[in-house]
Amino acid sequence: MIKIVIDTKGGDKGASVVIKGASLALEKYENLSVMLVGDSELISAECASLGMPMDRVEILDAPLEITNYDSPADAIFNKTESSMLKGLKTLSEREDLFGFVTSGNTGVLLTGAMRYLSGKERVRPALAAVLPAENGGFTCLVDTGATIDCTPAMLHHFARLGSEFMRNTYAIESPKVGLLSNGAESSKGNKLVKETYPILAADESLNFVGNIEGNTALSGACDVLVCDGFAGNQVMKVTEGTATRIITDVMKYAHRTGSQEIMKLGMHLMSIYDIGSLGGGNILGVAKPVIKARGNAGEKAIVSIAGMFINMAENKAIFDKDKNKI
Amino acid sequence: MIKIVIDTKGGDKGASVVIKGASLALEKYENLSVMLVGDSELISAECASLGMPMDRVEILDAPLEITNYDSPADAIFNKTESSMLKGLKTLSEREDLFGFVTSGNTGVLLTGAMRYLSGKERVRPALAAVLPAENGGFTCLVDTGATIDCTPAMLHHFARLGSEFMRNTYAIESPKVGLLSNGAESSKGNKLVKETYPILAADESLNFVGNIEGNTALSGACDVLVCDGFAGNQVMKVTEGTATRIITDVMKYAHRTGSQEIMKLGMHLMSIYDIGSLGGGNILGVAKPVIKARGNAGEKAIVSIAGMFINMAENKAIFDKDKNKI
Repeated sequence: MIKIVIDTKGGDKGASVVIKGASLALEKYENLSVMLVGDSELISAECASLGMPMDRVEILDAPLEITNYDSPADAIFNKTESSMLKGLKTLSEREDLFGFVTSGNTGVLLTGAMRYLSGKERVRPALAAVLPAENGGFTCLVDTGATIDCTPAMLHHFARLGSEFMRNTYAIESPKVGLLSNGAESSKGNKLVKETYPILAADESLNFVGNIEGNTALSGACDVLVCDGFAGNQVMKVTEGTATRIITDVMKYAHRTGSQEIMKLGMHLMSIYDIGSLGGGNILGVAKPVIKARGNAGEKAIVSIAGMFINMAENKAIFDKDKNKI
Repeated sequence: MIKIVIDTKGGDKGASVVIKGASLALEKYENLSVMLVGDSELISAECASLGMPMDRVEILDAPLEITNYDSPADAIFNKTESSMLKGLKTLSEREDLFGFVTSGNTGVLLTGAMRYLSGKERVRPALAAVLPAENGGFTCLVDTGATIDCTPAMLHHFARLGSEFMRNTYAIESPKVGLLSNGAESSKGNKLVKETYPILAADESLNFVGNIEGNTALSGACDVLVCDGFAGNQVMKVTEGTATRIITDVMKYAHRTGSQEIMKLGMHLMSIYDIGSLGGGNILGVAKPVIKARGNAGEKAIVSIAGMFINMAENKAIFDKDKNKI
């Protein structure tokens, strides 16, 4: 049984939608159980009306909510009783809990994860997105916005975190690490990239494959694509914007021509390229899996993220088994 | 009659392809004439075999070629007799010449344009791409790679150059200027963007509309999108990579289903999103229009760029007329 902590507060769509998502996830995954954090009265009522299997549901009361107006520093001192921070604290304290998901404030989440789930060094965690690559695999893009201005040491840290994540959760033994740049040659890049290149190349624990350009960012040429949070945000959002634009064109064309076949194609493309439903960011550099869902995450996103946690738990098991063989 | 200078050397596909492109452009545009720079014997022979209208063709002999191995500093001192630099010099000296196009070395082109076509200040020019926007208009993305590491003053300069370019060549009276960032709020951005924001906001000669995120970069929300060359390169290449990937999916689907309709849709999308054929970069901040075609530019690209020069010449005329009314 894999038990995950779900923050019912902080999202744009309200607690009921999150609880509905949890209910659907429990239906879909028989080895899943959940801890729902938030307003316990409301949660109990929703669970009853949805007929949820209460032997796989635990409720943790936390009436306070972290909003998008809360600053990390304020929240961490004054809102420890919020659903987000109480959920993270409980995750850190209990061995039976596997991971945590919230659609609330990213800044507070990063700071909270650092407070409750990082080692002694208290290094700021990274925010990664695992995106479907052209070759059928996945590319872990890190950082996607947790740290906007970075140093070479930070990018080096991201490379290690991303490699570890892809090794542990996608069972890739030696993840290929690429450095996002404006040209493939080692001489290309901005100051940050040029300074980072030799550091990554010198680290023998990394499978560094060199610079990767934007047009092959998600080709599958690397398993981990390292960049600062500003560039990572651009890669994510430009990909999303372009995909949305072209798929909108396809749907318009379907409507104009009345072609059922093109309509089907459009729906198919939407399912592949709907970055929003892919479940959002993974917080790397903390002791347990923490996922940031989008602010406007709906029921489907919660189900999809529950699936990600289950994959992580199972892939890790596979990986550990393989490791144990040698 | 609009006369443009065409560098026949320096491209991946050789001089014959460039001359063939010039020939097609002369067929398409009756008000076009060309100066072909390069190996005069070869050019004469090609012109004869293509039956080109020699009353609209001038040949300038320049046997040396700038290659991708030439450094700007070396080239500018030692290769002034190259087709690229001799072409730029001639453009700067003769009033009847409107603009210049080359598919050769970008670094040498920028330095050469600065040497022969800039004012006394010798400010490094910017490299802009004019991309089709979602709303049917065009967005001038500046810089796309001429200057990788930028200061706020440079971004300010790009905003002014881009505005001037869109005003003069697309007849947009007050071009909307956006600043590429990782969030719409004025507080969002990396250090560079945060420092640039108040400078753009304070410049009353600019129609500054604030931060623009990657997913709306080409929505048409702004006419000029300002960023450093590293970020601009990402926006261009990620857009291109995503478009290529989705259109490839559409074509595969067409082949699998054998649907003629989907095949037609795929071809249509290719024609809209084929960034390669859009003609490459505009050098901004110089006295006359200079266009950098892609290294692998073919005949079609030369025709398309000739069309861009004609548009520029004509739009400018329209704009100047409107201006003269007041």
